[in-house]
Amino acid sequence: MSERVDWPGTALVVGCGLIGTSVALALSVRGTTVHLRDATPGVAEVAASLGAGSAEPPGTAPDLVVVAVPPAAVPDLAACLLREFPSAVVTDVASVKAPVARALGGTADAVRFVGGHPMAGTERSGPMAGSALLFEGRPWALVPVDGTSPEALERVLSVVTALDAAPVVMEPDEHDRAVALVSHVPHLVSVLTAGLLAVAPREHVELAGPGLRDVTRIAGSATGMWLQILDSNAGAVAGLLRSLRGDLDRVLDALDAGGDVLAGRLSDVLDAGRAGTRRIPGKHGDAVTVSNAVVFVPVDDRPGVLSALMADIGESGVNIEDFRIDHEYGRPVGLAQIEVAAERADHLTASLAERGWTPYR
Amino acid sequence: MSERVDWPGTALVVGCGLIGTSVALALSVRGTTVHLRDATPGVAEVAASLGAGSAEPPGTAPDLVVVAVPPAAVPDLAACLLREFPSAVVTDVASVKAPVARALGGTADAVRFVGGHPMAGTERSGPMAGSALLFEGRPWALVPVDGTSPEALERVLSVVTALDAAPVVMEPDEHDRAVALVSHVPHLVSVLTAGLLAVAPREHVELAGPGLRDVTRIAGSATGMWLQILDSNAGAVAGLLRSLRGDLDRVLDALDAGGDVLAGRLSDVLDAGRAGTRRIPGKHGDAVTVSNAVVFVPVDDRPGVLSALMADIGESGVNIEDFRIDHEYGRPVGLAQIEVAAERADHLTASLAERGWTPYR
Repeated sequence: MSERVDWPGTALVVGCGLIGTSVALALSVRGTTVHLRDATPGVAEVAASLGAGSAEPPGTAPDLVVVAVPPAAVPDLAACLLREFPSAVVTDVASVKAPVARALGGTADAVRFVGGHPMAGTERSGPMAGSALLFEGRPWALVPVDGTSPEALERVLSVVTALDAAPVVMEPDEHDRAVALVSHVPHLVSVLTAGLLAVAPREHVELAGPGLRDVTRIAGSATGMWLQILDSNAGAVAGLLRSLRGDLDRVLDALDAGGDVLAGRLSDVLDAGRAGTRRIPGKHGDAVTVSNAVVFVPVDDRPGVLSALMADIGESGVNIEDFRIDHEYGRPVGLAQIEVAAERADHLTASLAERGWTPYR
Repeated sequence: MSERVDWPGTALVVGCGLIGTSVALALSVRGTTVHLRDATPGVAEVAASLGAGSAEPPGTAPDLVVVAVPPAAVPDLAACLLREFPSAVVTDVASVKAPVARALGGTADAVRFVGGHPMAGTERSGPMAGSALLFEGRPWALVPVDGTSPEALERVLSVVTALDAAPVVMEPDEHDRAVALVSHVPHLVSVLTAGLLAVAPREHVELAGPGLRDVTRIAGSATGMWLQILDSNAGAVAGLLRSLRGDLDRVLDALDAGGDVLAGRLSDVLDAGRAGTRRIPGKHGDAVTVSNAVVFVPVDDRPGVLSALMADIGESGVNIEDFRIDHEYGRPVGLAQIEVAAERADHLTASLAERGWTPYR
């Protein structure tokens, strides 16, 4: 990372939240002169103090303008910035792309505009949460509008690649259907499931295990941004949710019918779900491999225990594909879940047992 | 763990799958003489070879019989075993409890029967997946039926406690509603969301991130057992799913309405989801604390890297509350997510940066 970029020599980042500040940091470390602007007084200065660039207006015309404001404000502001900087390529980072494509597509300035959407973020927001590394390895959708020039697309593509993200060029509507599928509908489903817990008896919720925590984790996110996202992608989200409701109704029919009807229909539904999980890109961008195995190791909740465990895994020579800790209900103990290539799991288990752990599979 | 138990001196475990073998292993290491029985030839012998007990029939009457067969077979088999061993306390491990309560409640033998359900398991099945440690810190529901004696309940309660699980005594219908909430409905929701991926264009699924992987992880489980579970708890599951469908319809209405109606209704839905996640028991059995912070560290995909990272975290003196690795799309790099007490996050970040990592928050 941090290889210097030839272009843009000068960039203006408008909106210094998590994403804007992260773009500015990532460009700054690669040698671009970055200027920062934010509607809220003091925010650009905070980002500047983190090394994201200068809070002063650019002295020369910027080559690139990045619009990193909340999604609802993007279409009007992008149009305004295209007029303010008539030689700049302008891109944005809003998570829904049809509104800006509708606003700018077919205009004279569209030649210099490329929609963008980095698939990155954290639960935190604001410039303090920014990081030059936020986009490393993440998909970054690039969405030309009606009239975008190949040169502008090529420019933004080169920037995204330099930021170590994985660019994916898409049509606006296709992008919005895709994020409804992989982000907006899963978010609502997680929220609705968690919502059932809000009104349930405490004794029921106390039986919760890791599966429920997985399903509901993203439902803990802040509300404000999600309202804008769902508002601006309401059509695509509603379309998929209706499809999901159709599937849900078929499950309800099967549950009511019972017996062979239940078994037949639900087994189709369960099989479709398994097939779906196998399509999610896993490590290294491949489909999730089924040839990994998980070794479980109970660990005490003391400083240094995980360090000792990792050292012993290192000694075994087995590479870790994935690693999680699940905390146990009601006691200060955790369960480490070490995912390794299936053919290495026995070796790891034996190696850890030799070193005094109590691994199991 | 592994303190010796006074009772049962002799136990018979019927059904040597994951749970039965794990119960047998856990009892064996605590000094109980365990006998194993399985309807499939050779399976009890496999469990015996793992140290779970003896595949020979018990020479003396067992004190405890554990029925660990697939849920649909439990009611008839439990009744049969109560007759076969007229002095034994009998318990089961089926994940739905009303059917066995209906079958045995009010019978003369009910005095010696206690329903049970350990909230533990893995994606794997069969005796080879068994572990004496499977139940450590996990909730284990105990479900007396009509006629269960206090003495029988007390006996099984003492065994569950000795196995380091956290016993929770519940009524059958209440148990089944609780597991519909924390397990069965989340499973179906995960399956339905994953099912949308099964039929989606590959370019859409490629934008997937960690949130989608969390929501759909449990949808990868095997189908067979889930059909029995959903069949035997169809009523409670359908009840909650209808409630969820009602919430889903309100979301669809809000999406169709747009504007202020959308913002008002969806903000209630999103807030309820956040409130729900805060009720899930987290570490040490407390509600999930909001005072933790996450430090992110990009790591290469080489053996020993995580070991080195853990060693450096250990050097910092900061205790790890939770730890995850997310693998990046399309490249051999991972992102370690280290959850620590919020007031320790800055110290950890500085300490790791000093040691050559590139942590961020």
